[in-house]
Amino acid sequence: MSEKERNKKSEATHTFWLFGIHAVRDALKNPKREKIRLLLTRNAEKKLENSIEQTGIKTEIVDPKKFNELLDRGSVHQGAALEVKPLLWGDISDTCGNNEKNSVVLLLDRISDPHNVGAILRSAEVFGVQAVIGTQRHSAPETGALAKSASGTLERQPYLRVNNLSRSIEELKSLGFVVLGLDGLAEKTINEGINSFPIGPMAFILGAEGPGLRDKTKLYCDMLVKVPSFHGEGSLNVSNAAIIALYDIRHGKRL
Amino acid sequence: MSEKERNKKSEATHTFWLFGIHAVRDALKNPKREKIRLLLTRNAEKKLENSIEQTGIKTEIVDPKKFNELLDRGSVHQGAALEVKPLLWGDISDTCGNNEKNSVVLLLDRISDPHNVGAILRSAEVFGVQAVIGTQRHSAPETGALAKSASGTLERQPYLRVNNLSRSIEELKSLGFVVLGLDGLAEKTINEGINSFPIGPMAFILGAEGPGLRDKTKLYCDMLVKVPSFHGEGSLNVSNAAIIALYDIRHGKRL
Repeated sequence: MSEKERNKKSEATHTFWLFGIHAVRDALKNPKREKIRLLLTRNAEKKLENSIEQTGIKTEIVDPKKFNELLDRGSVHQGAALEVKPLLWGDISDTCGNNEKNSVVLLLDRISDPHNVGAILRSAEVFGVQAVIGTQRHSAPETGALAKSASGTLERQPYLRVNNLSRSIEELKSLGFVVLGLDGLAEKTINEGINSFPIGPMAFILGAEGPGLRDKTKLYCDMLVKVPSFHGEGSLNVSNAAIIALYDIRHGKRL
Repeated sequence: MSEKERNKKSEATHTFWLFGIHAVRDALKNPKREKIRLLLTRNAEKKLENSIEQTGIKTEIVDPKKFNELLDRGSVHQGAALEVKPLLWGDISDTCGNNEKNSVVLLLDRISDPHNVGAILRSAEVFGVQAVIGTQRHSAPETGALAKSASGTLERQPYLRVNNLSRSIEELKSLGFVVLGLDGLAEKTINEGINSFPIGPMAFILGAEGPGLRDKTKLYCDMLVKVPSFHGEGSLNVSNAAIIALYDIRHGKRL
């Protein structure tokens, strides 16, 4: 079995729990989301009545204590938990092959914090990003915590995880994407970087907080760019750096 | 005793624990930070040697288990904890009175999540924000968790908490600030809002995720503005919305 087939198999058997009224409702409404078990308190059932009817899934009414066995401590479940499979968005050619002049893709080089990945997915949706692509290892997987931070977006925004980020960068380049890596020590700003290339599909790579982009990743970038600072001190949260790239390519100054 | 005096007194007696090598080092290096107790493992003491020497604070060497009594479960303390008092930045006239044409202030209307406030403080520092002003109630207080999300910035970026946000808005207006409120349903974009007023000191108000700005807060704004979306779906994390306002006023298109 090839690595690709092994991953497909692992994705197909892997399940996780979404929790909270909003996340469960968003998933129930998503026809592409494969649903396994729905656990609700009587109270939560009333709130989700309409969404449940549409799916036809069988509801298991449970005692609120039951949730503590399934979820991490401190998860605000509001009496609703839904076991699901990860969404299958396909590979890069499926999600990015049909690109246009204004296509934008985000690559995440080992960003593991679900708060940050969730915020990035939200920004990606708002600014029309074709796909967010993370590494299979060291990137936040689809979990209830990620769904919560992503505030519904996980159901709609393509989020792929790949084994080899360098190979994905090469693939994007072959599809016509220019690839800019965000690096606080870069000489050019994001805006200068965007304006250095003809208008066309563009990908931005973000690194983990602290280490930033791996050296190997930097080698594959067409250019390294930075968020311009006002007086040189401090550093941005990675999701905040990501949205600057998106805002700039959608609404920034074009030369 | 007036409300102001009561708050000053409460701030003066309140203490909290910073934890983790980075946060403790940043606080040790900050001469304005009042330090109470420093608890370290032998290992952490070696790493912080230089910073401790500079302050002259007495180190208590403790067993790693000791930290669990002081800190929340799951806090990554790395064998270092420092009990401190909140920084006293003074009031609005102290921090924003001496404003210039390019002064920018951020107001937070009940943003309680320390992840978000921490990210906002980092963006504020990078884009040279004069002060971040939150509400005394329902805004993330200075804590170890906030310091961790703020990644050192808490020691340098003025962060005030006020009893009455409306009164603070009025005070900023009297100091010459134009006040824009961020609201997803606004008609004008941030860029249009900025360009609607002559260049001068400007304040942006962000609301909590979900409820957004309170109706009362909206009434005090000179204009409501939104982050322009690409195709209408989704919503931004509040720290991501905040940085768009900062980036636009520092680097956006001026008409």
